[in-house]
Amino acid sequence: MKKFEDLGFSKVDLDRETRTGYPEVIYGEGKTAEQIRQIMEPLIETHGKVMVTRLSEEKAEILTEAYPDARYHAISRILLYGSPREKYGGDVMVLCAGTSDLPVAEEAAVTADWMGCKVNRLYDVGVAGIDRLLAYREEIKKASVLIVVAGMEGALPSVVGGMVQRPVIAVPTSVGYGAHLQGLTPLLAMLTSCASGMSVVNIDNGFGAAYQAALILKLATEGVHHETALS
Amino acid sequence: MKKFEDLGFSKVDLDRETRTGYPEVIYGEGKTAEQIRQIMEPLIETHGKVMVTRLSEEKAEILTEAYPDARYHAISRILLYGSPREKYGGDVMVLCAGTSDLPVAEEAAVTADWMGCKVNRLYDVGVAGIDRLLAYREEIKKASVLIVVAGMEGALPSVVGGMVQRPVIAVPTSVGYGAHLQGLTPLLAMLTSCASGMSVVNIDNGFGAAYQAALILKLATEGVHHETALS
Amino acid sequence: MKKFEDLGFSKVDLDRETRTGYPEVIYGEGKTAEQIRQIMEPLIETHGKVMVTRLSEEKAEILTEAYPDARYHAISRILLYGSPREKYGGDVMVLCAGTSDLPVAEEAAVTADWMGCKVNRLYDVGVAGIDRLLAYREEIKKASVLIVVAGMEGALPSVVGGMVQRPVIAVPTSVGYGAHLQGLTPLLAMLTSCASGMSVVNIDNGFGAAYQAALILKLATEGVHHETALS
Amino acid sequence: MKKFEDLGFSKVDLDRETRTGYPEVIYGEGKTAEQIRQIMEPLIETHGKVMVTRLSEEKAEILTEAYPDARYHAISRILLYGSPREKYGGDVMVLCAGTSDLPVAEEAAVTADWMGCKVNRLYDVGVAGIDRLLAYREEIKKASVLIVVAGMEGALPSVVGGMVQRPVIAVPTSVGYGAHLQGLTPLLAMLTSCASGMSVVNIDNGFGAAYQAALILKLATEGVHHETALS
Amino acid sequence: MKKFEDLGFSKVDLDRETRTGYPEVIYGEGKTAEQIRQIMEPLIETHGKVMVTRLSEEKAEILTEAYPDARYHAISRILLYGSPREKYGGDVMVLCAGTSDLPVAEEAAVTADWMGCKVNRLYDVGVAGIDRLLAYREEIKKASVLIVVAGMEGALPSVVGGMVQRPVIAVPTSVGYGAHLQGLTPLLAMLTSCASGMSVVNIDNGFGAAYQAALILKLATEGVHHETALS
Amino acid sequence: MKKFEDLGFSKVDLDRETRTGYPEVIYGEGKTAEQIRQIMEPLIETHGKVMVTRLSEEKAEILTEAYPDARYHAISRILLYGSPREKYGGDVMVLCAGTSDLPVAEEAAVTADWMGCKVNRLYDVGVAGIDRLLAYREEIKKASVLIVVAGMEGALPSVVGGMVQRPVIAVPTSVGYGAHLQGLTPLLAMLTSCASGMSVVNIDNGFGAAYQAALILKLATEGVHHETALS
Amino acid sequence: MKKFEDLGFSKVDLDRETRTGYPEVIYGEGKTAEQIRQIMEPLIETHGKVMVTRLSEEKAEILTEAYPDARYHAISRILLYGSPREKYGGDVMVLCAGTSDLPVAEEAAVTADWMGCKVNRLYDVGVAGIDRLLAYREEIKKASVLIVVAGMEGALPSVVGGMVQRPVIAVPTSVGYGAHLQGLTPLLAMLTSCASGMSVVNIDNGFGAAYQAALILKLATEGVHHETALS
Amino acid sequence: MKKFEDLGFSKVDLDRETRTGYPEVIYGEGKTAEQIRQIMEPLIETHGKVMVTRLSEEKAEILTEAYPDARYHAISRILLYGSPREKYGGDVMVLCAGTSDLPVAEEAAVTADWMGCKVNRLYDVGVAGIDRLLAYREEIKKASVLIVVAGMEGALPSVVGGMVQRPVIAVPTSVGYGAHLQGLTPLLAMLTSCASGMSVVNIDNGFGAAYQAALILKLATEGVHHETALS
Repeated sequence: MKKFEDLGFSKVDLDRETRTGYPEVIYGEGKTAEQIRQIMEPLIETHGKVMVTRLSEEKAEILTEAYPDARYHAISRILLYGSPREKYGGDVMVLCAGTSDLPVAEEAAVTADWMGCKVNRLYDVGVAGIDRLLAYREEIKKASVLIVVAGMEGALPSVVGGMVQRPVIAVPTSVGYGAHLQGLTPLLAMLTSCASGMSVVNIDNGFGAAYQAALILKLATEGVHHETALS
Repeated sequence: MKKFEDLGFSKVDLDRETRTGYPEVIYGEGKTAEQIRQIMEPLIETHGKVMVTRLSEEKAEILTEAYPDARYHAISRILLYGSPREKYGGDVMVLCAGTSDLPVAEEAAVTADWMGCKVNRLYDVGVAGIDRLLAYREEIKKASVLIVVAGMEGALPSVVGGMVQRPVIAVPTSVGYGAHLQGLTPLLAMLTSCASGMSVVNIDNGFGAAYQAALILKLATEGVHHETALS
Repeated sequence: MKKFEDLGFSKVDLDRETRTGYPEVIYGEGKTAEQIRQIMEPLIETHGKVMVTRLSEEKAEILTEAYPDARYHAISRILLYGSPREKYGGDVMVLCAGTSDLPVAEEAAVTADWMGCKVNRLYDVGVAGIDRLLAYREEIKKASVLIVVAGMEGALPSVVGGMVQRPVIAVPTSVGYGAHLQGLTPLLAMLTSCASGMSVVNIDNGFGAAYQAALILKLATEGVHHETALS
Repeated sequence: MKKFEDLGFSKVDLDRETRTGYPEVIYGEGKTAEQIRQIMEPLIETHGKVMVTRLSEEKAEILTEAYPDARYHAISRILLYGSPREKYGGDVMVLCAGTSDLPVAEEAAVTADWMGCKVNRLYDVGVAGIDRLLAYREEIKKASVLIVVAGMEGALPSVVGGMVQRPVIAVPTSVGYGAHLQGLTPLLAMLTSCASGMSVVNIDNGFGAAYQAALILKLATEGVHHETALS
Repeated sequence: MKKFEDLGFSKVDLDRETRTGYPEVIYGEGKTAEQIRQIMEPLIETHGKVMVTRLSEEKAEILTEAYPDARYHAISRILLYGSPREKYGGDVMVLCAGTSDLPVAEEAAVTADWMGCKVNRLYDVGVAGIDRLLAYREEIKKASVLIVVAGMEGALPSVVGGMVQRPVIAVPTSVGYGAHLQGLTPLLAMLTSCASGMSVVNIDNGFGAAYQAALILKLATEGVHHETALS
Repeated sequence: MKKFEDLGFSKVDLDRETRTGYPEVIYGEGKTAEQIRQIMEPLIETHGKVMVTRLSEEKAEILTEAYPDARYHAISRILLYGSPREKYGGDVMVLCAGTSDLPVAEEAAVTADWMGCKVNRLYDVGVAGIDRLLAYREEIKKASVLIVVAGMEGALPSVVGGMVQRPVIAVPTSVGYGAHLQGLTPLLAMLTSCASGMSVVNIDNGFGAAYQAALILKLATEGVHHETALS
Repeated sequence: MKKFEDLGFSKVDLDRETRTGYPEVIYGEGKTAEQIRQIMEPLIETHGKVMVTRLSEEKAEILTEAYPDARYHAISRILLYGSPREKYGGDVMVLCAGTSDLPVAEEAAVTADWMGCKVNRLYDVGVAGIDRLLAYREEIKKASVLIVVAGMEGALPSVVGGMVQRPVIAVPTSVGYGAHLQGLTPLLAMLTSCASGMSVVNIDNGFGAAYQAALILKLATEGVHHETALS
Repeated sequence: MKKFEDLGFSKVDLDRETRTGYPEVIYGEGKTAEQIRQIMEPLIETHGKVMVTRLSEEKAEILTEAYPDARYHAISRILLYGSPREKYGGDVMVLCAGTSDLPVAEEAAVTADWMGCKVNRLYDVGVAGIDRLLAYREEIKKASVLIVVAGMEGALPSVVGGMVQRPVIAVPTSVGYGAHLQGLTPLLAMLTSCASGMSVVNIDNGFGAAYQAALILKLATEGVHHETALS
């Protein structure tokens, strides 16, 4: 089987699923609908499925005409074709701090779902009304992996990180103004969090957080050899 | 009465108490012990009291020799001479997120005390162990003004701000490393806080926060004319 | 009484007035008119009033159609429904440096008014024509709390801060170009002000400054227990 | 059992193991040896173990005198007392790009080991000599979780991320000069990586990366309920 | 012969070819079509050829009407008139990391071609699928000069730099979001590359990279006096 | 006469006085005492005078031993040899905001004096005590050129600029902390000043401000041909 | 005579000419045509002249209808009404590096002319073709004051500064891309120039440079008392 | 032959000469003398030569004791062992702007020499005294490759780039203060140069510039197949 399809302007990576567990995902921004269509073709042929992120409604219309089986999610701006090969155990909880973080939170949720994860959503639980968050403390503690999306000062992941035994992936968003610096401020804040066990992805990168969450559930589902417990 | 004393290298502002309610405070960094001593002289003569901030232990030794009645606080690096003219009603609560924020928190506490405020301290209640903070929720709600000191990602003021009906003054500290950018990160984070009613002072500026807190208690103590309540 | 209304995309905080003294305020940017309408509903039902900030004229038209009793202030881009529960003693003076700072100054003034404060405006008194400011020195000294709005180099709050015995809240604006860095320069300048007793809010955040000013007047109106004066 | 020990300057979090799976770890910088000793006491009493990071050799000498059973690792500047409660299945591979990244890589390796993970080291495999990395491709693919440490331009995690099906945690280091900006450059570079499934921690934060890796192995070892595979 | 043509708003440098080997190239942005036309005139008259970069389609239409012999390349946004005076030996290989880097890569390729270089293109060989790059290792090693274009984290030039004996010129692109900072991140990353023998040009400056590549081939074609080899 | 003396490591510019009105000034930082001595030699021989800036006390001792006629100013860290060729009409007023700005203000004052200007000093007149400044308003208005030195938020030049008909040269200083960013904040603030007729030099560059002030007085002293006044 | 006209949204400074030598200039951006018209009225009435900068063509049309005697300069975007009260001796030379710097250079030239200065223009003499600049060396040396406008790397003022005995005011422009950072790069570069006697104004601030140049010529025209020359 | 020597803490790249034309160079900073000695061993054994950069005098003493044939250059802080395998035709000219740029210029010169290039030095020819540079115009035009080192505003490479037909590699230095930002300012300035055909390396990276210069001369010496000239 050939490892990539050379379209000239693009070398479609047909080997990626073998290597990394998932087929190549198409980043929709900065590509024409026609370019995306050409890249989708060999991916669908090889894997029977494809995901396109950051896709405008205009391009989505053209592509869903070409591929009537594709579904477009307007809030997360994601186009999906096909279904996950397997469904993992455990679940991903996606939390977000405010209503305006929704598009990023949904990018994470839709991605994780499509990659085979069970997803629970807990939205608008920002720290300025800490009781809303505390009301869900038990649910939060039960999640296998947590994706915490926040704009503004990005404080939510630190609070969540101190409540759970599970990995937390923090996603800063570009929601804010002035000293918020288009998301740089929550990004830097999350990186210097006082909570341990937390890692961070790029601003608005709900996709990346979900991708890593899926890899974690995949590992946990496949299982690891258990060493002898010592105590 | 003359409005300032001209020492050539310094014009000591003897009118400041009349104008702003407090005599000039001496910023100790970048001045020699001898320069500070010369500035202290007319201030003590005029007001009977003086405060020096950011004072190294070496300079403090020289100055306490010159002014045996002066007290030096090593953690906050403040030198005090004399006592507050009046004591205000209400109280200032100084919270800090971690042990390393102590010097800044103490700068705030010592300043507020010296300016005539009753001070309550609540230290090491960072958000990664939210239960420590929640354990003191009732005390926090009773404070008249709150100074919240935090380094790292600076999330504590947002959580506190969402709990109280009183003004919150946030102080970022230079405690942290890497993406913390010597305190710029919590500074920017606090400025974009999702909690309302919060304002911010410069990095490590415990003094400035306490100064404003004292002005607030002064106003509240002096009282304002009460308009007719509408509902 | 339930503490929040869960709309799925939003958990409307109905408990906030109890906790912080004021009902939740809706940040209009990044929400659709329909989302705002849905959030307004339980807030109006619970509190009989609501405020929406950063609201475009287009959305305001839709919302004033839905709520004919709501008033829209075009310069400050604020929508108001209902009136303050109580009116505080004292007053807030809103100063601004130049004509272009008007929208931010008005955001502060309209907010403070709606929260129950008496508001005095003193506009276009930037430091390059210091006599305009000095002409109002007596009025300035009489204010209970001062909100000082300035773009460009943000020097006005430092001059005002040195004239008064009352808390000064500084608001940098995004008015300027080049080295002004969209407001970062006056923000940083205000944070390093040589005047004591001053704190700072985010760029263009007239709302936040007014919110804190209102909390200060609320405290001063409710009064604090007066300790024995010492001198 | 009490949830925290109040030492005044510190509220030692004795509940953290219950909540997050691990006892509180002491950040050694900015604390005196005596402060650290006092914090260690209740932690050792409660959990029988403790870890101190960023500890200078001078303080380590004082502490190992007080606790002769404690071991100090000079390269990673970590002090350990006690052993992991359990050992997890799978393994963590720690890779680093250059010899100067060693202290950070070792901080990760020592932490992961102490938290109960099997650790494999693969050092000095930077991308400018890509064949060194490719020579270990099979070993890399077999790791359960990968921690990739790199200074300079921080390119190594992107290459590794494209080779594996497992989560990659990237750690930028402060090794470099000029345009490297004390580690900000590789930090930002890693955040914008073209490889999916990668998340990032703060500059030089080997500890944080290892902590999250341990949480992932803990989850994988405890296992998750396996949903029915669909294809 | 006069050294420059003074058009008032522009002093067209007619001496540049003599001095630097190439006639002045017109930077199209920020100039009107009419201004460009006037600058083209003396250049065509003197040199029989001209190149315009960063030219919008609208202006290109006007100019190709005025100069029907001119060719416009839409992807690279370059307008060409005339042909290279000489063709150099060796070749320039232009590599790019992703499909969205195409416009910058083409700016480099079209420029190098027009300056007299043989150009080979190798597109979409980013490091997250390292095998695509390795598949072309032999071709890469044979190139005389390499221009490596990359957005995102900018890692490709480091890998290529470690594979070849020839000069590598790295071009960061503005393709990316968030922590990518409009291309600053790959720019800084390339400057701190762990590969030797690499230099960098401005963000999106495909033209500048090609210009230097052409100067290198020109030197190599003209030849240098060979000193006696020592071993 | 030869235009420069080639010392290998330095080409001493002996023609500069002819070209720019003043002999080359030696920047003392980053040069050894011996290098400075060698550069001084041809300058003294040609011009009979020389100035060395940013000179440490250690190097100054060595150089005053070699040139006993040289005078070292410890506060401004300047070494002078010889006297100004001519003395200009008018005067330069050097103002500074605080005591800690003294070294920079003195660098300006000593330089201007040595270049032939009459210098008046007005120190410690920062805007937080605006009355100190206003007390000298008449003197300020009479100055021919004003150099205004300020650290912190750098507001002083804006106030002075609005009071006078003469050119104002603003000098930001590195005095401050936190958001002051080692002087970047007052630098940017001064550049966006609301006062017209003001220009800015580098942080702590008292020398550069004085140099330009001297050129202005030189021009004014030499006089310009007066056009017919129109109204 | 009253010192300012209070329009509510603006306090028009009618005293400025007395204080600073020139009437208030209106900054057109961020004001409506109607607001500008209202501010123009008292200024014209008092001074018989007014200047509006940064004025769009749309607003200019409205204003020239209201004031048919006003002239609008489209390139510099300046509206002028009335003429200079006096014309100064000497002259201002405005140099610019490239054609795209024209609007800023013209803002400087038109401003200086209107303020009473004789203006000479020397455009498109950037340092990459140094001979164009050298061709005008004699003219450059004869100028009384020099305004040097440059985008890109901002190198032109340093070269000019080393050629003349007169003050150089450098103006960075926002012309450039990528590492140019919207003009921050030439701004910072000019501030660290190796040429003495140079000062800098904000990005694109041709107006500010011309304003200071006019103050210098005004001083030189009015003359200063000449001290006895010493050598 | 094995491709790398695994020392555990380092994998010494023995294959690099084959791949890239030169053996691995050791970056001395952040490594102990002992680590460097261990890395030198296999490199000397395999290639008969080695270069260590950024080496302190202290470490150099230890290493020259271990390898008495090694030579240490104190100004450039480089240790050399062995000689270049071949000497290339043409020459590298190293220019620098000021005396303080010497260490970086010498790092470039010593590196280029050791790599087999003939080196010409032209130091202290900064643009503020343009005649010094112009005095050497003919020599500059004859160089095969030019390395231009400059701190401050970094203007020199732009002027040189406009004079020659050969590739220019610009090296910014960390010499400067304030707005110079430790070299970031000249770095960014050089990247936005108005001269074509110029590329840039990291701050103070004289080594990197020389490395690329050597690769260019190597290519030119080996020669490229000459295509038919067209005109």
